[in-house]
Amino acid sequence: MSLLQQTIEQITATTKANYDKAENYIDSLAKPPKSLGKLERIAAKLAAIHDGEFPKIHKKEVIVCAGDHGVCDEGVTTNPQSVTVFQTLGFPKGTTGVCALAKSVGAEVVAVDVGVLEDLPADSGVILKKVKYGTDNMAKGPAMSRDEAIRSIEVGIEVATQQIKNGVNLLATGEMGIGNTTPSAAILSVLEDCDPLEVTGFGAGVGEGGIAYKAEVIRKAIALNQPNRDDIIDVLAKVGGLEIGAMAGVTLAAAANRVPLVVDGYISTVAALIAAELNPHVQDYVLASHASEEPGAKIAAARLDIEPMLHMNMRLGEGSGAVLAFPIIEAALSMATTMVTLEQAASIIQPKV
Amino acid sequence: MSLLQQTIEQITATTKANYDKAENYIDSLAKPPKSLGKLERIAAKLAAIHDGEFPKIHKKEVIVCAGDHGVCDEGVTTNPQSVTVFQTLGFPKGTTGVCALAKSVGAEVVAVDVGVLEDLPADSGVILKKVKYGTDNMAKGPAMSRDEAIRSIEVGIEVATQQIKNGVNLLATGEMGIGNTTPSAAILSVLEDCDPLEVTGFGAGVGEGGIAYKAEVIRKAIALNQPNRDDIIDVLAKVGGLEIGAMAGVTLAAAANRVPLVVDGYISTVAALIAAELNPHVQDYVLASHASEEPGAKIAAARLDIEPMLHMNMRLGEGSGAVLAFPIIEAALSMATTMVTLEQAASIIQPKV
Repeated sequence: MSLLQQTIEQITATTKANYDKAENYIDSLAKPPKSLGKLERIAAKLAAIHDGEFPKIHKKEVIVCAGDHGVCDEGVTTNPQSVTVFQTLGFPKGTTGVCALAKSVGAEVVAVDVGVLEDLPADSGVILKKVKYGTDNMAKGPAMSRDEAIRSIEVGIEVATQQIKNGVNLLATGEMGIGNTTPSAAILSVLEDCDPLEVTGFGAGVGEGGIAYKAEVIRKAIALNQPNRDDIIDVLAKVGGLEIGAMAGVTLAAAANRVPLVVDGYISTVAALIAAELNPHVQDYVLASHASEEPGAKIAAARLDIEPMLHMNMRLGEGSGAVLAFPIIEAALSMATTMVTLEQAASIIQPKV
Repeated sequence: MSLLQQTIEQITATTKANYDKAENYIDSLAKPPKSLGKLERIAAKLAAIHDGEFPKIHKKEVIVCAGDHGVCDEGVTTNPQSVTVFQTLGFPKGTTGVCALAKSVGAEVVAVDVGVLEDLPADSGVILKKVKYGTDNMAKGPAMSRDEAIRSIEVGIEVATQQIKNGVNLLATGEMGIGNTTPSAAILSVLEDCDPLEVTGFGAGVGEGGIAYKAEVIRKAIALNQPNRDDIIDVLAKVGGLEIGAMAGVTLAAAANRVPLVVDGYISTVAALIAAELNPHVQDYVLASHASEEPGAKIAAARLDIEPMLHMNMRLGEGSGAVLAFPIIEAALSMATTMVTLEQAASIIQPKV
């Protein structure tokens, strides 16, 4: 059995009874029931993942998957593709935005080359797992072969599994790939069966033709490649991206190993959707972080039944929004594990004086 | 000169040139300009407060001000007033929600009795600065005298000034006071010159009469007491609360000492509005945290030109939302101080291999 198939089969649903047990306990704490809103739901979801116990976060990490996109040839972005390699080399050196934020919240950053355009030095500190030198231009043909799509997912599985073995028990997906809001919108419009314009946004800088042109490129790519909506690997291969596949793989590995996974923005959420198409129970392991400015992000999050907690007007990518959610998630667990129950509070506090 | 007057006069505007300098520097970092959204605006605001330099947060703390409300006699809330004393005694013991969250983010919690109904034990750990045993019922007459209102603000100034002397350089206001969304809505409706119903919400549990009845009580209190919209002390005295006055005082002291202050939810934001009425430059020192569920909170935040970063569906109060913003604020500073500029990144990274 392939690594992908094996991982998909390893994923099981969390138990509702465990969620309910955690929720009931949280309701018994010294506060009006439900008054801590999403914090309570986060803590209960994490408890459901951990067999009904509130976990302790030992090591938190964002896995940044990097890849280039042939569709940049169509002028869908203002950013030069060389930025992908440049920034990817910056992650191990700590020069990028997500590194500064991760440092602040005590998280690690790991970068993986799944498909950047150039070969990276062996000593770059980037995990080298290149599947292909960037995708092909989906406006001219499939972005990659089916085998490459599967391999890209497996790269994510391999890296995440290793990180989990190293002790990471809170994961996030981040990405670096100039042009990658275009394939993300393509994948989502296929899944939603909607016009690409509904899920296409500004990205990190839309090309001269604007959003309408970007949507037209996607429309053309879908018409040309005819991805099969009921076969998510086909969708990923024809109109997806290598780093998007890898992020889907990270998400699958997290779920298979019962590790909660925080999605970042649009691309990361679409990757989680791919994972959820392969096994719907993935949803039980996924947490939202910030609200992306991309119009499709909200639709993608709703499909996963997750709701962002942060509204930061951020559009950097790299997992930068996901790492900001780490301390909030830890605070949710602190609430569940260090608050006393109303009954305990009554025995500690003697209000009559 | 009174402590209040002295503090008000000590507050000066931050310098736009310092904000701009910080903003320009942030624009030069290795990321698309403005791509870190609110994080960038937070870092620039903090730099403007600190003479153009990004500060280091040494000690962060929430000051929880506690007081009772005579208007509870009107049945505006389902919660018994005894909860105020009970929870106030819980802060030093670490039993409340904000304590668990503060612990998780490395913040301190300090509680002040400005006006709870009972005397608290001297060894309770609560800072004892009672001005009055709860406000009077504003539906029957003024909530307090003008002198008591001034004194409540000065209590906040005294406590915050001491905490700042102790090394705190990031502050938040929190509150404990059953019934206090009612005076908060009253104050805001006077300032906004709007019908109370527009700024009245569910609170921690609205009484049997529902929100419409709660708004009617406020309408009646305003009609009876005729607070002078152009004299915020008069408004606070007639339809306000003791802990609300103290939170306004904490806000004033923070601004006077050039310490950034994070507001929590509705009550905390209204308190910051009171401070801003006394000196509009207060606005330069105030940061938002989470979006309260109360309909008036958005209006209050807009008046201060601040925008919440967290959307947590939280309605606990106590400063619980404000402490969650602390790690985000620290991450913003980490972004500004540890990210390299695009120029530096180019010299560190040699993309051509």
